[in-house]
Amino acid sequence: MIRVSVLYANSEGSRFDMDYYRDHHIPLLQARLGEVLKQVTVEQGIGGGRPGASAPYRVMCHQLFESIEAFQNAIAPHGAEIMADVVRFTDIKPKIQFSRIIL
Amino acid sequence: MIRVSVLYANSEGSRFDMDYYRDHHIPLLQARLGEVLKQVTVEQGIGGGRPGASAPYRVMCHQLFESIEAFQNAIAPHGAEIMADVVRFTDIKPKIQFSRIIL
Repeated sequence: MIRVSVLYANSEGSRFDMDYYRDHHIPLLQARLGEVLKQVTVEQGIGGGRPGASAPYRVMCHQLFESIEAFQNAIAPHGAEIMADVVRFTDIKPKIQFSRIIL
Repeated sequence: MIRVSVLYANSEGSRFDMDYYRDHHIPLLQARLGEVLKQVTVEQGIGGGRPGASAPYRVMCHQLFESIEAFQNAIAPHGAEIMADVVRFTDIKPKIQFSRIIL
């Protein structure tokens, strides 16, 4: 199993509409990827490692897939539509990471 | 529920012993935190957003707790022991993030 993480940095003055993200963007992702998307979690940063420090990431989204190929095949026909939706909730350019699940 | 994420950057020349981490450090964490630690996942970075890009993080560890207070109370008596174990598997100083689970 692999995880695709989409990490939105907590940059000052940035825009992120969590209501739209949760109620429209994630459901769009789920509708287009179907059962290939095994699990999706959304987390909102509330703090960093030291007392009073801000969270490195404003939002983190983690998605579970069987393999990178399964993800790529599922996203290919819908990538343009999904990307076009991003400007509706944020101006942050996310970091993307593919990971192998160790534990 | 809150998530504590420990993010080890994928810096060139850094050291990370995944075997030690998985087989000794994570079990130490589980033993000391007990049932307060609801869930722990470990992921190893395999790629970034563009073809051929390296993963932003070499390792990501996500831990689930009832609340920040529950985490703080559980870690307080064992923080020194857990921190002292870190040099045995890495020289990377991790980013820490506390997040609220949205979805």
